[in-house]
Amino acid sequence: MLKLGFLGPKGTFSQEAMLQYAGGLKDYKAVEYGTINDLLLSVQDNIIDEAVVPIENSLEGAVNATLDMLASEVDVKIKAELAVTIRQNLLVAKDTDMKDIRCILSHPQAIGQCRKYIDSKFPGVQIKYVYSTAAAAEEVAGGDGSLAAIGSMAAADVYGLKVLAKDIQDGDTNITRFVVVSKEDGVRTGRDKSSIVFSTEDKPGSLYRILDIFNLWDINMTRIESRPAKNQLGRYIFFIDVLGHREDDDLADALKMVRRKVSFYKFLGSYPCLKEGYSAIER
Amino acid sequence: MLKLGFLGPKGTFSQEAMLQYAGGLKDYKAVEYGTINDLLLSVQDNIIDEAVVPIENSLEGAVNATLDMLASEVDVKIKAELAVTIRQNLLVAKDTDMKDIRCILSHPQAIGQCRKYIDSKFPGVQIKYVYSTAAAAEEVAGGDGSLAAIGSMAAADVYGLKVLAKDIQDGDTNITRFVVVSKEDGVRTGRDKSSIVFSTEDKPGSLYRILDIFNLWDINMTRIESRPAKNQLGRYIFFIDVLGHREDDDLADALKMVRRKVSFYKFLGSYPCLKEGYSAIER
Repeated sequence: MLKLGFLGPKGTFSQEAMLQYAGGLKDYKAVEYGTINDLLLSVQDNIIDEAVVPIENSLEGAVNATLDMLASEVDVKIKAELAVTIRQNLLVAKDTDMKDIRCILSHPQAIGQCRKYIDSKFPGVQIKYVYSTAAAAEEVAGGDGSLAAIGSMAAADVYGLKVLAKDIQDGDTNITRFVVVSKEDGVRTGRDKSSIVFSTEDKPGSLYRILDIFNLWDINMTRIESRPAKNQLGRYIFFIDVLGHREDDDLADALKMVRRKVSFYKFLGSYPCLKEGYSAIER
Repeated sequence: MLKLGFLGPKGTFSQEAMLQYAGGLKDYKAVEYGTINDLLLSVQDNIIDEAVVPIENSLEGAVNATLDMLASEVDVKIKAELAVTIRQNLLVAKDTDMKDIRCILSHPQAIGQCRKYIDSKFPGVQIKYVYSTAAAAEEVAGGDGSLAAIGSMAAADVYGLKVLAKDIQDGDTNITRFVVVSKEDGVRTGRDKSSIVFSTEDKPGSLYRILDIFNLWDINMTRIESRPAKNQLGRYIFFIDVLGHREDDDLADALKMVRRKVSFYKFLGSYPCLKEGYSAIER
């Protein structure tokens, strides 16, 4: 049976992503982890077979913990990606009403995603940042009736809370992209994407020269993300997603050239593209 | 008298950065703010004259709240930059010793910066994430003696705590870069940097073509950072720092060309380069 890891606690959108991916599996066992680090290390160490981890949100940006682990701490490959629409809700204890709310709790990202709703409905309310939307729901469940959490419908179920308002996020485009990691990446489907991470030499024009290689081979870049190299302020590593599979002739040749021109290179995997909501913006 | 805003509470590294910048001022009044949003809006609305805000850390990366505000929420300019070395310390109540510590509190970034120290000295200790290093220190000051905070020496002073271990961060390269924002940017010094933010049309090669412009005019790029465009997964805006002042002929011409080729463009300011620890890596 396939052991499939996800980032707990139950009731977060990471569990929802895991269930969405598991819907296509015959037989699996879900394993809950407390941190992205432990989750990815367990795949590397063969304790679990695959893991579903968040990598990017359409409002809040990159999930740095995932990028940093993939770049330098674990040797695993991306075999699939999936997108989950994030819908935030106002969750309260059974006998709490709008007028009773004195303090709103959630993860800073969730608070940020509902900023306009909070400012219009609860001007001046106290905001308390906690480590996860599920932790906020748990605290509200044990609170005195003046608290509200921002979180998922699943969190309302898990902690027995009432949903006072649905879909309170600013805008309708709050989507988190997750990747499935394993010891091997995906097989070629003809509609694939590949991810690499690299650092360039410390001289002018070095990033430009790498993008020039993709331009030369007509390879579309869908994403570039920089992260600090961590050894010096002003030095970076770059995550790039390009269209194509590592077995495609052109991409194979381009990546071979990229490897020559960089000071650090790591291939993160080829995997089928998401079918919707994700277009090629760059070459 | 110049009103100079900073991100509170007192005892954080943002206050340290403000004091470092204020050291070069004749006469000023420090004004404490609770959020980056309020701080930047107050500069725009002429409530304060200047503000010191964090923009990038050498281990943890970009400060997203600052980038997002500068891109789309406020009309202010960067007039200076400065770097502050972050030194984390283990702070406890007066009568707490190493063996008494059951729980370590801090901001997730500070915990992340001291991960190796915590794992080696306190394997299995409970970790509690709070919203700032100063909030952690405050909680330890009011706690039962089994708590420790990770934070600045200034926080130890402010909350009357004992410093049990100094410089516990992983590596010696933990530096935060701050920018000073105002209604006007910096005057030309001959050793300047300029910041812009833009988004490209949604077609292949559009980012490459922008970097091509800087290459054509021999302009060095020191940083590229992407943030989600927030209207669709897979669309981004790009922050780019280049060497030169907007009054330099070549940079003026290059930026004029960039404006032609992008769908959104905002100039964020020209300002003197940091003298150390910050080199031109890209063109």
